Amino acid sequence: MSAFRKTTETFTAGARTLPQRYFIGPEIFAQEQAKVFGRQWMLVGHQSEIAGVGDFLVATVAGESLIVLRDQRLTVRAFYNVCRHRGTRLCEAPTGRLRAIQCPYHAWTYALDGRLTGAPHMDEAPDFEKSDYSLHAVHLVLWEGFIFVNLAASPIPAAEWFAPLASKFAHWNLPQLRSARRMEYDVRANWKLIFQNYSECYHCPGVHPALAKISPYDSAENDLAEGPFLGGFMEISKGASLTMSGKACARPLGEIQGEDQHRVFYYSIFPNMLLSMHPDYVMVHQLWPQSIEQTLVQCDWFFHPQAAEVGAPGYHYDPEDAVAFWDMTNKQDWHVCELSQQGIASRAYRPGPYSPRESIPAAWDREYLRFMSEA
Amino acid sequence: MSAFRKTTETFTAGARTLPQRYFIGPEIFAQEQAKVFGRQWMLVGHQSEIAGVGDFLVATVAGESLIVLRDQRLTVRAFYNVCRHRGTRLCEAPTGRLRAIQCPYHAWTYALDGRLTGAPHMDEAPDFEKSDYSLHAVHLVLWEGFIFVNLAASPIPAAEWFAPLASKFAHWNLPQLRSARRMEYDVRANWKLIFQNYSECYHCPGVHPALAKISPYDSAENDLAEGPFLGGFMEISKGASLTMSGKACARPLGEIQGEDQHRVFYYSIFPNMLLSMHPDYVMVHQLWPQSIEQTLVQCDWFFHPQAAEVGAPGYHYDPEDAVAFWDMTNKQDWHVCELSQQGIASRAYRPGPYSPRESIPAAWDREYLRFMSEA
Amino acid sequence: MSAFRKTTETFTAGARTLPQRYFIGPEIFAQEQAKVFGRQWMLVGHQSEIAGVGDFLVATVAGESLIVLRDQRLTVRAFYNVCRHRGTRLCEAPTGRLRAIQCPYHAWTYALDGRLTGAPHMDEAPDFEKSDYSLHAVHLVLWEGFIFVNLAASPIPAAEWFAPLASKFAHWNLPQLRSARRMEYDVRANWKLIFQNYSECYHCPGVHPALAKISPYDSAENDLAEGPFLGGFMEISKGASLTMSGKACARPLGEIQGEDQHRVFYYSIFPNMLLSMHPDYVMVHQLWPQSIEQTLVQCDWFFHPQAAEVGAPGYHYDPEDAVAFWDMTNKQDWHVCELSQQGIASRAYRPGPYSPRESIPAAWDREYLRFMSEA
Repeated sequence: MSAFRKTTETFTAGARTLPQRYFIGPEIFAQEQAKVFGRQWMLVGHQSEIAGVGDFLVATVAGESLIVLRDQRLTVRAFYNVCRHRGTRLCEAPTGRLRAIQCPYHAWTYALDGRLTGAPHMDEAPDFEKSDYSLHAVHLVLWEGFIFVNLAASPIPAAEWFAPLASKFAHWNLPQLRSARRMEYDVRANWKLIFQNYSECYHCPGVHPALAKISPYDSAENDLAEGPFLGGFMEISKGASLTMSGKACARPLGEIQGEDQHRVFYYSIFPNMLLSMHPDYVMVHQLWPQSIEQTLVQCDWFFHPQAAEVGAPGYHYDPEDAVAFWDMTNKQDWHVCELSQQGIASRAYRPGPYSPRESIPAAWDREYLRFMSEA
Repeated sequence: MSAFRKTTETFTAGARTLPQRYFIGPEIFAQEQAKVFGRQWMLVGHQSEIAGVGDFLVATVAGESLIVLRDQRLTVRAFYNVCRHRGTRLCEAPTGRLRAIQCPYHAWTYALDGRLTGAPHMDEAPDFEKSDYSLHAVHLVLWEGFIFVNLAASPIPAAEWFAPLASKFAHWNLPQLRSARRMEYDVRANWKLIFQNYSECYHCPGVHPALAKISPYDSAENDLAEGPFLGGFMEISKGASLTMSGKACARPLGEIQGEDQHRVFYYSIFPNMLLSMHPDYVMVHQLWPQSIEQTLVQCDWFFHPQAAEVGAPGYHYDPEDAVAFWDMTNKQDWHVCELSQQGIASRAYRPGPYSPRESIPAAWDREYLRFMSEA
Repeated sequence: MSAFRKTTETFTAGARTLPQRYFIGPEIFAQEQAKVFGRQWMLVGHQSEIAGVGDFLVATVAGESLIVLRDQRLTVRAFYNVCRHRGTRLCEAPTGRLRAIQCPYHAWTYALDGRLTGAPHMDEAPDFEKSDYSLHAVHLVLWEGFIFVNLAASPIPAAEWFAPLASKFAHWNLPQLRSARRMEYDVRANWKLIFQNYSECYHCPGVHPALAKISPYDSAENDLAEGPFLGGFMEISKGASLTMSGKACARPLGEIQGEDQHRVFYYSIFPNMLLSMHPDYVMVHQLWPQSIEQTLVQCDWFFHPQAAEVGAPGYHYDPEDAVAFWDMTNKQDWHVCELSQQGIASRAYRPGPYSPRESIPAAWDREYLRFMSEA
């Protein structure tokens, strides 16, 4: 769920939902793998997850297992999780700390920067040069502390891609935050339905009665209404944050002032990030399409790095107060996304009319189609 | 299992079972969806299941979820279970009672006759007319109290389709009956194997020892031996009905007289109904092909509407006496159908010779091929 | 795991692993079904499993269920498990003893040599001749007591196929052995990875620490280094056999003399047999590809036919001592095969350089490609 147009964007009269094939066609999924997930900047985590030398996480992007790690110089790097000898998967654990990357099969060994440093008996092979067999590297960038990778050979430069968001979120102190909790959801719906769901609050009165009570569905104002990044804020009209108790559940994230202390900012970052910034915590969804009709959603709740310390005056640290609120709300959303997936698969489905309260989903669709129309 | 030719039909010398592709080819299944399940009259239930205003059941026909209901005027109607706004599945429950059909996502609301009556905020959309967004309706007819739907745009008229059966079953009082029990079976066999199995009793001595004892496998006489409706009767030579006890398990269904009091009538109604009429109960199978090699079978046992009332002289009402008998017999049949599915998938399978006792399966195959050969 | 080149074979400089499609392409699997599993001699068991008249086992070869049995004259035969009437699967049990083969559906009956001997009511069918409806037979041969079948219409003669191995294994007394134990493994890897894994011990130091301690990875000598049969021996440097205890676990298999008493002989028999001969037991793997990325492995441990008898001086019979050793070692192998399957599926996979210690896998690949290049 999220903000819809109020004042800034123009309602596109006559905009309709996408044709059926975009939600059920395996050929569309294959195109998306090629043109979207395999070519755009994909969120895989936050730098705080791999703070020390050799810390790694394994991410799966467009079906590809990647090792994301800190090398000896603390640089964050990503490699395909594939040995150059016989193709063996190198890292099995989802996270951990490594001194080097050693293949479990024939013990070929790579340094943290990807160079092959050991290959038993290969000195007996004529013309074999270790330098020809470094791990295959993947493009990687840090943006606001979040780790993004890109499988393309020549990606759009990250500075150019993220330019529209430059300094926009400085108040929230994103690079310093730490995740206190992660949940995963297996959603039986196309990933686009989740974006479309996040991008309007027309559904809130019926689907989210608890949320609608404390954050009026018609309080939204969007400042990004076209392009790959979309969203704005909604008011918190009752209570201090979106929590089960209605109270703030941690100290403020940063220098959040004035009216912003009573707002939640919702942005969708194409193609796999949802960024929901509250005064006291940030929720981040990663969307991982598994097939044309199934999506893995990974949800993190980030807090001030010192939130857990005793003695921050006036703030009782209780991350579960936020987690429980959004876990309930997330599940309400996934349920209607799944019902939409089911109905759209019918031969009776025809693209339907977006309401004036659904201008952001319509804008998201336009942007999506722009990527899909690329060569 | 069922009646086979005795006197009325002509044995087709040289008739053989269908080629392998009809049992294992996904392309055949796709053709069947188009030419059979998506174009013919399909049994989905009995009118007694939705007796009152707003009563509904959800049926799945050729992969399509349909809402079948009584509207305000008690007319039985069927609609695709798809919201006209964003395609969301409307009804999740398999049965129930509705005052109106409201979409769980954005609360668009439809009357029981399918008209859109509520669509929040759509009055802000220029050129939007509610009358353009009624639910998509599906053709429906009642025959002998059974509900049939047809997904075709212009189906064969039901009166014409059912004409060969006009008044034929009047003695059994079918429109008034009520189901006392429903069972579902997941059969790992092509749906045609179930029809072929139902259409001969050549297998009865080996497969159904209990049945064969009380209803001789060579007692059959068929009166419908060609066309989409096939069958006839078999004698009950021992006991009053087909039950575990051998006794009648309920009062007679209607005006069943003379020899018919000791007969079971078996008819296959193309393409998804098996109708088995005993003196005291009617068993109805619905066949729902799930894939080329899997079929969901739903089986109902229908009784006189007052069967359960105390005091019908001489008749002890015990539906389980019939249910247990046929549940045992059904499972024996599904098992040999599954063995046939397995063997037919072999490269060694060749169409085999139908025996003179299998003229009805051969006739069924001819009729099936006629439908499949349509444009 | 197995022997690698030491002295006899020539290292092919520049040999690389197979291209990705051979491990993930369903079209390759279909070609393999046609050119390899459906056309070559496939191991299905040992003659000791069906010692008496009517004893049978059911094998599945290239998706085909086969009945392998001893007929009335003790001849071993194989038939497709398919009734000639309506295609029904005949035998459901995996093993057992039969007097005749009777179809469970309509009771057609076949003698143990495949002739149709009973077909109720078919005497009423004009032109029906029982002799036209024998079971479909499959080519079968016994080699060293092992049963091989071949689905081809005109297979390569078995004598020609097995000629390179004539008398080679006479010392081990293979026709007389008996399996004391069978285990099955579901391996999530392409079947070729299992052959490649068996064919080198370059991986042994890292993957099999227990094995490497008692059988040095560099002790191998191969005498078959090209063609469909590959392998040689490795030394047992510590203890009497490959067992958990290090002791022999049964009396010697045959006339094994001199240095061979301290050797294990490893041979791969294209396309589905691995033959591992220890002084006191023989381990045989059957490989059954289920899909391009999944293989069922059946492993038997064979012993001297009188091994279990009390009183063979100096030999304590303890088959589990061998079974436990290889069950541990097998699982270590399957694990790295599965990791290879995962990594090879990556877009980053490129055929990698075989080391000089992997000349047998390279030879196996050449032979495999030769079969795949046949018309």
